[in-house]
Amino acid sequence: MNNIALWERYKKYLCECPSIGMTLDISRMNFADDYLVRMEPGTQKAYQAMDALESGAIANPDENRMVGHYWLRSPGLAPSAAIRQEIEDTLRAIKDFTFSVHAGKIFPRKRARFTHLLSIGIGGSALGPQFISDALGTSADKMKLHFIDNTDPDGINRVLTEIGGDLVDTLTLVISKSGGTIETRNGMLEVAAAYRKLKLSFERHAVAVTGVGSKLDEIAKKDCWLAKFPMWDWIGGRTSVLSAVGLLPAALQGIHIESLLKGAALCDALTRSKNTLTNPAALLALSWHHATEGKGKKDMVILPYKDRLMLFPRYLQQLIMESLGKEKDLNNAVVNQGISVYGNKGATDQHAYVQQLRDGVNNFFATFVEVRKDGEGVSLAVDPGVTSGDYLNAYLQGTRNALTENGRQSLAISIEKLDAPSIGALIALYERAVGFYAMLVNVNAYHQPGVEAGKKMAGAVIKLQGEVLAFLRGNSDNYFTAEEIALAIKSEESPESVFKILEHASVNPDHKIKKSPGNRIVDSKYAATESS
Amino acid sequence: MNNIALWERYKKYLCECPSIGMTLDISRMNFADDYLVRMEPGTQKAYQAMDALESGAIANPDENRMVGHYWLRSPGLAPSAAIRQEIEDTLRAIKDFTFSVHAGKIFPRKRARFTHLLSIGIGGSALGPQFISDALGTSADKMKLHFIDNTDPDGINRVLTEIGGDLVDTLTLVISKSGGTIETRNGMLEVAAAYRKLKLSFERHAVAVTGVGSKLDEIAKKDCWLAKFPMWDWIGGRTSVLSAVGLLPAALQGIHIESLLKGAALCDALTRSKNTLTNPAALLALSWHHATEGKGKKDMVILPYKDRLMLFPRYLQQLIMESLGKEKDLNNAVVNQGISVYGNKGATDQHAYVQQLRDGVNNFFATFVEVRKDGEGVSLAVDPGVTSGDYLNAYLQGTRNALTENGRQSLAISIEKLDAPSIGALIALYERAVGFYAMLVNVNAYHQPGVEAGKKMAGAVIKLQGEVLAFLRGNSDNYFTAEEIALAIKSEESPESVFKILEHASVNPDHKIKKSPGNRIVDSKYAATESS
Repeated sequence: MNNIALWERYKKYLCECPSIGMTLDISRMNFADDYLVRMEPGTQKAYQAMDALESGAIANPDENRMVGHYWLRSPGLAPSAAIRQEIEDTLRAIKDFTFSVHAGKIFPRKRARFTHLLSIGIGGSALGPQFISDALGTSADKMKLHFIDNTDPDGINRVLTEIGGDLVDTLTLVISKSGGTIETRNGMLEVAAAYRKLKLSFERHAVAVTGVGSKLDEIAKKDCWLAKFPMWDWIGGRTSVLSAVGLLPAALQGIHIESLLKGAALCDALTRSKNTLTNPAALLALSWHHATEGKGKKDMVILPYKDRLMLFPRYLQQLIMESLGKEKDLNNAVVNQGISVYGNKGATDQHAYVQQLRDGVNNFFATFVEVRKDGEGVSLAVDPGVTSGDYLNAYLQGTRNALTENGRQSLAISIEKLDAPSIGALIALYERAVGFYAMLVNVNAYHQPGVEAGKKMAGAVIKLQGEVLAFLRGNSDNYFTAEEIALAIKSEESPESVFKILEHASVNPDHKIKKSPGNRIVDSKYAATESS
Repeated sequence: MNNIALWERYKKYLCECPSIGMTLDISRMNFADDYLVRMEPGTQKAYQAMDALESGAIANPDENRMVGHYWLRSPGLAPSAAIRQEIEDTLRAIKDFTFSVHAGKIFPRKRARFTHLLSIGIGGSALGPQFISDALGTSADKMKLHFIDNTDPDGINRVLTEIGGDLVDTLTLVISKSGGTIETRNGMLEVAAAYRKLKLSFERHAVAVTGVGSKLDEIAKKDCWLAKFPMWDWIGGRTSVLSAVGLLPAALQGIHIESLLKGAALCDALTRSKNTLTNPAALLALSWHHATEGKGKKDMVILPYKDRLMLFPRYLQQLIMESLGKEKDLNNAVVNQGISVYGNKGATDQHAYVQQLRDGVNNFFATFVEVRKDGEGVSLAVDPGVTSGDYLNAYLQGTRNALTENGRQSLAISIEKLDAPSIGALIALYERAVGFYAMLVNVNAYHQPGVEAGKKMAGAVIKLQGEVLAFLRGNSDNYFTAEEIALAIKSEESPESVFKILEHASVNPDHKIKKSPGNRIVDSKYAATESS
């Protein structure tokens, strides 16, 4: 297709969304002109299903739950007055709490004001807040944010070292929907110990965001934490960024959360359209379906040309892969669905993997994200009459053209400027696109059964570790191989796990395990230096 | 395969590398027992080719260049005394310069010591340094590092705001092998302007790392920068991390660069082995080849269970995709090669896309990276007798088991501890694995022709912008559509590019372009508010 034909196709398919300052360009996906028409029956079914979801249907049947993230920004649409009330009350509570913290009415024991915010959470309770914080943070932020999002003791220690003595005026959020996420619990315990080390009460610096009645909720209540904010079973972790999970840290940072919600609500209004050509979420989902043949046959590469959007691809990686990556469809047929997502930012990635995108295996489609406004004020001319931002824009166009030239498909989203409304809109756009896509391929986008399997197997390893250590302590100073121990503790079927537990334990001082190296590492012997 | 069979296979294939504290486990890739034997002729050819490469053959024929990154850590192997001398002299110069900076003998104009380091570079001149800095940084670092790795004016401004008044004692490195990378040049110009704004001489705070005789080299010489360090045409950007590109910032940060080099040299020694079962780089390459059928048919997911290794997947994404993602093989046949790479870190990613890995489309193989030592000292018990690090280890094993159970293949690298030697070894391991793989599939791993296409097309957009703006200024206050302008400047074939230039220019104040919105956005009209 030559440039003129491309331009005609561009004009034909350009989806203009002035209310959110956005355009979506699907013209460089190589669908035939009858594609959207052919898909229309399925698309209309998806609209109906989305209507039902928004009206409070059990859209997550496995977990027998409603799916309500759209109500968060339009509480009037909630299916009951009680839910509407909960949303509105929580938003008010977030704003009141934030006001009190900023005004120094809620304050740390030994300082006038909280100036640092440490957020402990993982997955849906981390990526959304991290993305928003990075996208919208400025030097005028009211609080400095830190995140602990793993159970890596060294990583936790590093964040605590970075905060250092400022822990005195650090407010800590513990975010866990279920209230039982082990990584988050571990982070909380390590952080609580750090407060104690400075002779500070963790409880007087702590806030919980969690489901009512959860383990974490009980702890926060019993120990009189500064505050707690609810999560609801009709909000999934990966779509929780516009609930207290994301709004509370954003508000505390100084981001205008009403604008985030407004942008999302405006995008929702647009993407409820049943006129496919004017519905950017439907067009995204249909473009994905075309590229991947509805079977994940191509990867989705996300290329935002803006440093502040660096975490957007990772946020989408979670949203899309965890929602769509399913073994079974809603009829219980094995389908092994999903779309793989990756990317960082342009122009930077051009000097990394874009070489492969242009020349290598054609196993992807790209999504370019353009932000037209470069920044505040007038820019430096790096060449006569050319700014750094002009170059950024030219690199986006140039790279996209180079991909088109070689038959690589791409989408492009343009937003006028990067601010709270446009971030809210981007979030809402992809939430709904994922919802539509899931309906097109008939999977439940709102559960995550596969995550449980790994957790369960990890629990088995922890249990096995207890047995291995107990055995060694019961036979202290006697050396055994992994195989011998596995046999002795009646875990003959798990010698590899036993071996790995021993290798880990013998390198760290915590369990006082010593190792006598074997000829091959797998023949090494291990002993406890202390009896139990 | 049951656990006992898996354990037998584990023992059979485990590649032990005690000299670098590493093991590689390929047992959970589903190759048949005769696979390595069948591949052995090709593998032996790859060993030969690698020998030739290390001896100074023109291993990058397109650019008529030798490929010498292995000499950086074993200068005695360089093919000429002159090259050996250059490597050794540069290493000495890096150490001398670093000593002088740390000792305050080289100092900023208005302070006693440089305490901040701002590194400007992109792609190979950024990712390696960023990875090492993040992996090995501690609170005892001698200098605080900042990176500018894009031509995003807002992103640049953000880094400069973060540095703020500390620019006074900030040493700025400008890293560009070719000395002509536009993004880096733009970053340099913006940073130089920031120094001037504080009435500081940029030149007295600047250091260059670049090819001798390059544009940047000339500027650094002419303007008497504090120092400059050479790059050579026999080092590619993505394998430059153990040249001055990576060693200089690492040394200035306070990282023991001799240990980095030592770890890499030890790994090189191991991976020169022609006994495939004991050569971890060959086993990696062969495992990739098996999983992807030598055609990029599966993605490589990298899952390091360590916060400090968070940038490792992104570093590998560049190294692997830019090296392997090629249109043509060495015989000029069109092959569209490559392997897509993505990942962040475990356990965190378990709460994101691991759902899809376990249950969804089976289009990947995973590489788990375990670090056995959790950190310094004794850890907190988060459960009786269980540490956060035990959980991290259990999550790795549990998730890997959950993938195995569902027929998803994986590799596992275990390193004893994360330190400079092990980071050097990891870098060297993957550099050689990529080299081997390229030889197995017969592509040139050391050029990047596809990157040029995008650059060229971006240059065309910049040129077109100049013409568009000149036309509007020549007709100031008259409004035109994109199509009209394209026609007028004889770029009828590029209305889409003209339109995008106008949309960008009209949102930013730099070029003084105003917009009169059309019925549809593509019909908008634009005018210059000033004549030229």
